[in-house]
Amino acid sequence: MRKQSLDKTDIAIIGHLQVDGRRAYTAIAKDLGISEASVRQRVARLLRTNVIQIVAVSSPLDLGLIWAQVHLRVKGDRLEAVAEAVADLQQVDYVSICAGSFDIMVGVVVHDREELMDVLVNHVRTIPGVEEADFLLHLKILKDNYEWSPREIPRPA
Amino acid sequence: MRKQSLDKTDIAIIGHLQVDGRRAYTAIAKDLGISEASVRQRVARLLRTNVIQIVAVSSPLDLGLIWAQVHLRVKGDRLEAVAEAVADLQQVDYVSICAGSFDIMVGVVVHDREELMDVLVNHVRTIPGVEEADFLLHLKILKDNYEWSPREIPRPA
Amino acid sequence: MRKQSLDKTDIAIIGHLQVDGRRAYTAIAKDLGISEASVRQRVARLLRTNVIQIVAVSSPLDLGLIWAQVHLRVKGDRLEAVAEAVADLQQVDYVSICAGSFDIMVGVVVHDREELMDVLVNHVRTIPGVEEADFLLHLKILKDNYEWSPREIPRPA
Amino acid sequence: MRKQSLDKTDIAIIGHLQVDGRRAYTAIAKDLGISEASVRQRVARLLRTNVIQIVAVSSPLDLGLIWAQVHLRVKGDRLEAVAEAVADLQQVDYVSICAGSFDIMVGVVVHDREELMDVLVNHVRTIPGVEEADFLLHLKILKDNYEWSPREIPRPA
Amino acid sequence: MRKQSLDKTDIAIIGHLQVDGRRAYTAIAKDLGISEASVRQRVARLLRTNVIQIVAVSSPLDLGLIWAQVHLRVKGDRLEAVAEAVADLQQVDYVSICAGSFDIMVGVVVHDREELMDVLVNHVRTIPGVEEADFLLHLKILKDNYEWSPREIPRPA
Amino acid sequence: MRKQSLDKTDIAIIGHLQVDGRRAYTAIAKDLGISEASVRQRVARLLRTNVIQIVAVSSPLDLGLIWAQVHLRVKGDRLEAVAEAVADLQQVDYVSICAGSFDIMVGVVVHDREELMDVLVNHVRTIPGVEEADFLLHLKILKDNYEWSPREIPRPA
Amino acid sequence: MRKQSLDKTDIAIIGHLQVDGRRAYTAIAKDLGISEASVRQRVARLLRTNVIQIVAVSSPLDLGLIWAQVHLRVKGDRLEAVAEAVADLQQVDYVSICAGSFDIMVGVVVHDREELMDVLVNHVRTIPGVEEADFLLHLKILKDNYEWSPREIPRPA
Amino acid sequence: MRKQSLDKTDIAIIGHLQVDGRRAYTAIAKDLGISEASVRQRVARLLRTNVIQIVAVSSPLDLGLIWAQVHLRVKGDRLEAVAEAVADLQQVDYVSICAGSFDIMVGVVVHDREELMDVLVNHVRTIPGVEEADFLLHLKILKDNYEWSPREIPRPA
Repeated sequence: MRKQSLDKTDIAIIGHLQVDGRRAYTAIAKDLGISEASVRQRVARLLRTNVIQIVAVSSPLDLGLIWAQVHLRVKGDRLEAVAEAVADLQQVDYVSICAGSFDIMVGVVVHDREELMDVLVNHVRTIPGVEEADFLLHLKILKDNYEWSPREIPRPA
Repeated sequence: MRKQSLDKTDIAIIGHLQVDGRRAYTAIAKDLGISEASVRQRVARLLRTNVIQIVAVSSPLDLGLIWAQVHLRVKGDRLEAVAEAVADLQQVDYVSICAGSFDIMVGVVVHDREELMDVLVNHVRTIPGVEEADFLLHLKILKDNYEWSPREIPRPA
Repeated sequence: MRKQSLDKTDIAIIGHLQVDGRRAYTAIAKDLGISEASVRQRVARLLRTNVIQIVAVSSPLDLGLIWAQVHLRVKGDRLEAVAEAVADLQQVDYVSICAGSFDIMVGVVVHDREELMDVLVNHVRTIPGVEEADFLLHLKILKDNYEWSPREIPRPA
Repeated sequence: MRKQSLDKTDIAIIGHLQVDGRRAYTAIAKDLGISEASVRQRVARLLRTNVIQIVAVSSPLDLGLIWAQVHLRVKGDRLEAVAEAVADLQQVDYVSICAGSFDIMVGVVVHDREELMDVLVNHVRTIPGVEEADFLLHLKILKDNYEWSPREIPRPA
Repeated sequence: MRKQSLDKTDIAIIGHLQVDGRRAYTAIAKDLGISEASVRQRVARLLRTNVIQIVAVSSPLDLGLIWAQVHLRVKGDRLEAVAEAVADLQQVDYVSICAGSFDIMVGVVVHDREELMDVLVNHVRTIPGVEEADFLLHLKILKDNYEWSPREIPRPA
Repeated sequence: MRKQSLDKTDIAIIGHLQVDGRRAYTAIAKDLGISEASVRQRVARLLRTNVIQIVAVSSPLDLGLIWAQVHLRVKGDRLEAVAEAVADLQQVDYVSICAGSFDIMVGVVVHDREELMDVLVNHVRTIPGVEEADFLLHLKILKDNYEWSPREIPRPA
Repeated sequence: MRKQSLDKTDIAIIGHLQVDGRRAYTAIAKDLGISEASVRQRVARLLRTNVIQIVAVSSPLDLGLIWAQVHLRVKGDRLEAVAEAVADLQQVDYVSICAGSFDIMVGVVVHDREELMDVLVNHVRTIPGVEEADFLLHLKILKDNYEWSPREIPRPA
Repeated sequence: MRKQSLDKTDIAIIGHLQVDGRRAYTAIAKDLGISEASVRQRVARLLRTNVIQIVAVSSPLDLGLIWAQVHLRVKGDRLEAVAEAVADLQQVDYVSICAGSFDIMVGVVVHDREELMDVLVNHVRTIPGVEEADFLLHLKILKDNYEWSPREIPRPA
């Protein structure tokens, strides 16, 4: 994936929207000493290039759902194919290829045990190349924060 | 934590904001056949009770940062205390108490190796009660989605 | 599996029979203020739909037997087929598909080491799809209790 | 624990009651060619000495409950003390001291995630001497059978 | 393997030879109050039926050798075939099929690192069906004792 | 431990006795072209310096016993103390300090499950410094051979 | 540790010396189009600031030595102290604090098994805070290369 | 690999060059009381037979690079083939076949996360026969020393 360039103004705008995704562009513009049109244009670009999404986020646990994480070990030549197949499952909210003691990290959100059985046994485990699937159940979320301070990423020359 | 009650209208509003956190309340009101004031009031309640946050989210990887997950095993009588101490660290963006082959899941976002060394060795590992810390480095995020469909949660009588 | 509906009276009857499986229906009927015929009818339904079995239970250890638990890791597309094949073995008293650090939990009851060797090496391990089999030997049972209090399960409309 | 002696007639009676715990003593007596009084007396002894219990058994999953297994590693000098403390918890239905890759096997039956969090984090994990607790969630029970054929255990001279 | 019957006199003779494999038969006969011919005959039978071997034993470490143990995980349908193939290797002094967290335990005695590399990489690991091979190096032997007290094994009727 | 010196003649004698521990010294002397007195003297020295023992060896499994291996992880400053305490237990036939994924390897031979429970739970696990004890049950011994060819160990100058 | 600044000329010089540590400075100067004095001065600085060492390297295996790697798990508040204590041992040639499934990676080079026993059991394992020590023996080195191409590191302003 | 013979003078020369790879041959010759020509000849032989390399070594971390270690489990009949294929990768600086809880140890040096993703996922993991790849990230190097004292290796007769 081509990295998007980010300058100080982009980062300041992202900072505002990480605190309040609905903050008025006029307020941001005033704070940064730029025009509202400039804020609007930059936000549009950040959204279009998928650097940010502005969305309602919540903990599945607060919504009465079962939230689990599944750690996959995968046959080496199937790594990206498995990651993509898992990402296509509706009950999967998160997929990362990672380096460590397993290969792919998967977030799963379901409504009840029957749906969990179905997604794990009939869908995740049957994807060709999945060797092992370790399962962890979230009991309580203490922090889920989106306010990372980005680094400046220079515009390629 | 007391669960908030959620009715069908709340869930429909959340659905709209999961797709676009800045969607105009008039558009949502029109779609659901209710007044804009009602949408505004319900969103305010959902935000105030922390059922949802409306924020700019992005992948730390797209912002040029190092994103890792750390899995802690903890002395039994220190479980919640460790989880709280980890959540207080600035570089930690995520903390979950979980059931499975370890006890606490921690997300870490840092700018470089020195900061990673510092947060892991000088901060996470020195919290009293931390027994083991397994580390995984995110290489590529394929999906990070917030569009869980909530369950209705009846208002307590 | 279709869940059976359970009302408060069913649950109260189950409670009686969890304490003493041979309790007279007249005693149960008197306690609940319903007719003996009604108790008899409900017990018959609970037995017929396999919600309960009324049986003599005992610890294999008290009967001079070897009791072990075997934890299987299985090829993903063979999970339910392996579970069914294991369940068909006479020396296997328990089979569960589970989520965690392995896939299938198997209880094994045998008379001596030769029978254990035979069931593990010649039968369990040779079922196609079994990848790993971890073995645990029960040394002493401290509790084996059947008095779970069920939840009401509404009759589907 | 002193082993109870078991002769062929005891074993035959247990066999009848493993199939149907409410089978009439007259039917058993007729089948074995002994008096009903003798059957009644032997069953009373088998119950009094805890060789068998006659009870209604069912799968927690069929009763709408969450059923899990927890594997404990324990400090060596606390092994039996931990096993006893765990057995005292109301949500624990099963406790075994075992030999293998962990020390104590615990069955847990709860009504929802909050109760699971409470029993695991506030009760099981805080018992002094518990070092690690691995967690497995039952998704589907394929077999749960109580018809072990006992071995004859000679009456001590 | 058919178990050999062992009576009290066999066990007493084995006890003598476990202490000193060259003890004179006359001395054993005198101690047990039987004839030397009877001792000779019984020892011959115990040797012929492989119940005992009378041999010089020593620690490979005291002989200037490298002694290691290798733990194999094996494909289920290859378990006995792998055990037999491993037992055929000259550098292997011990092979056991076992139940636990792996399948086959192998003792290896070699003269130097090159021979270790050869036996592990070119011979043990290339046997079809060997999945994993965990390696342990003996540093110091504190006890290696052959004086187990056997149980009486009745002669089959 | 001081290594004993071994010359070619010692090694040839050991070779004879590894095949048959009761082989007549005259036969060995004749084969090696030395005097019987010389053989007798060398064997006496090999026995006295514990380079070899001449004993009856057998498989505990053939004697109707339970044979298990226990792998200990131990607190670092207690390693040799634990190894010595384990070696003092009567049911322990083998103790090795080793390098690999655990610290001490222990062989255990017992008569029944009650003795196994006692030795593991009341004795091995309660030795101060024992952190973990992994258990493996021998099902079948395919090879147990004592015919290692020693290396010459020069007599120190 | 303060990072040294590295410019393109430093990197080119390092590249020359990674191939041949004794390459004449005149040859390097000629290749880079700078004066020999400049090369000499820069190499002196790279050596003085420990960016490079120019040394004879070899595989311990080729020198007839035993080479092993030990992976330590350490109590969290002792991590750097343990790493320093291990680094002080003469037989230790390599120490790294790392993130993953253990905490400290240690290279060990010894002459024989007795020295290995001594360094592992009497020295590494007795350092306060060492919890586990996993051991791996090098059998064959296929590549050991020092020709990393460095990145430019700007001189701090 | 044929071991090179090493005598005391070779070892003394190696000792000088392990401290300073550019030490003048005249200085070494003077210290050992031999001619400079002899030192030059022996160094040339030690280099030609690959007993030593004289090179600039440095820590990848000091050069602003990412340094990691990857532990591979490999299909048995592919062990040496995998080791060779891994050694062919440009980002791999170290490959060892080892005995322990995995099969091959791999050092990896890359410039950024994208290169790490590429080498691990597209190259290492896709080599046929690689079953598992465990990843560890170096955070800080405390010691990296090349001054092993070699053993004399007699010239074969």
